[in-house]
Amino acid sequence: MRNIKLTISYDGTDFFGWQKQPGFRTVQETLENTFESLTGPVRLNVSGRTDTGVHALGQVANFYTESSHSPDVLVRALNATLPTDVAILGAADVPQAFDANRDAKRKLYRYVIRDGPIPDPFRRRYYHQSRHYLDVDKMRQAALALLGRHDFHSFETEWPNRMSSVRTITRVRVNRFGDWILFEVEADGFLYNMVRAIAGTLMNVGRGYWPVSEVGEILHAEDRRAAGPTAPAQGLFLVRVSYE
Amino acid sequence: MRNIKLTISYDGTDFFGWQKQPGFRTVQETLENTFESLTGPVRLNVSGRTDTGVHALGQVANFYTESSHSPDVLVRALNATLPTDVAILGAADVPQAFDANRDAKRKLYRYVIRDGPIPDPFRRRYYHQSRHYLDVDKMRQAALALLGRHDFHSFETEWPNRMSSVRTITRVRVNRFGDWILFEVEADGFLYNMVRAIAGTLMNVGRGYWPVSEVGEILHAEDRRAAGPTAPAQGLFLVRVSYE
Repeated sequence: MRNIKLTISYDGTDFFGWQKQPGFRTVQETLENTFESLTGPVRLNVSGRTDTGVHALGQVANFYTESSHSPDVLVRALNATLPTDVAILGAADVPQAFDANRDAKRKLYRYVIRDGPIPDPFRRRYYHQSRHYLDVDKMRQAALALLGRHDFHSFETEWPNRMSSVRTITRVRVNRFGDWILFEVEADGFLYNMVRAIAGTLMNVGRGYWPVSEVGEILHAEDRRAAGPTAPAQGLFLVRVSYE
Repeated sequence: MRNIKLTISYDGTDFFGWQKQPGFRTVQETLENTFESLTGPVRLNVSGRTDTGVHALGQVANFYTESSHSPDVLVRALNATLPTDVAILGAADVPQAFDANRDAKRKLYRYVIRDGPIPDPFRRRYYHQSRHYLDVDKMRQAALALLGRHDFHSFETEWPNRMSSVRTITRVRVNRFGDWILFEVEADGFLYNMVRAIAGTLMNVGRGYWPVSEVGEILHAEDRRAAGPTAPAQGLFLVRVSYE
């Protein structure tokens, strides 16, 4: 059996997230159905599910197959068959033991905001429109409080059976490019809705509703009600998943 | 009465072109309906209609109104009300005599092609996927034959009552950026489907189906059957309209 690692990009708009659910169009089901005719049935093991409406620039999954197609042939055949809102960016044979979920060391997410008065029709599915001007310097200062190892329970939508809400954030960036604001965060793992809760919190700081110091208070509260609203899914991108 | 010039951007995917047609969603009707509640009824005079599926980065129209809203207020109010696939980029008071159609001196169109094996899910509505690798140097050489004043009848879909098919192309560019190929053409005016017929012709050259010299032959033929196929609308953008 071969073990193949895939890098996948998708526009999350018209998917009910990654994970298979009977009666809903999901990324996993769309991919597995397309694989079936090319390689026989496969089961994709993903780095982590993404929610309804969340996009991916570099999602990673692996699967076992007895197919003899080269990775390049697989990539071409899959892309020729898949619907246009999902694409295979690459495929590679990896050691038998590689597990896209368990072996993921870090994930990088990007949240895209626009705060100018003029919308962008061509990117309308790929950003969140803020009705307020946002002070990016304050957002950046506030975000720095999240760096390092913390209990992020305040930024977690309740999720049963989660063992721990301690995670380590290794990088945060908040940058403005004209009317675009990009918030990027990299960590060893994320809790349910964590990036969107942080984005909603930073927007509250950016519009002056909360002081920069509020983010530290929220962390210490360990209570989801202390943080800002969950920002809409359409601004969120899984950018990359890093392995050793 | 004020005369106001608008710069407009739209994703053409879900519009049946610019011009009003009963029972179809068009850009003109969408805009005029939105104006009605803000300024009273207006009639938009556009630089030129665009077809079903064609996009605009900088379409221009003007209209007469007795509204007292400042241009900035108009832009904000319109963008807050319009559907997200059309945006007003700017508004400005112009002299009474300004006519967006009659006074247009040049238009710049861009045709976007991708020729790599990996599609881009996020731009899938905004380019044409070529199944063949395209030689951009040959396409550029071929395109240069179009520069200047010519009868472009070979690149025109039949259109009744057109007085003349002589136009002057002032600029052509063909450039590759990775798997993206951008063909840009600026002229004092365009015939029906002209940019798409040129794009289809240049793609025939780029894939090696025709020699570079074919474009000159096609021009001289003055016969639409001599040129390449009309390339799909989704790769075509009206970039800007220039006035004196």
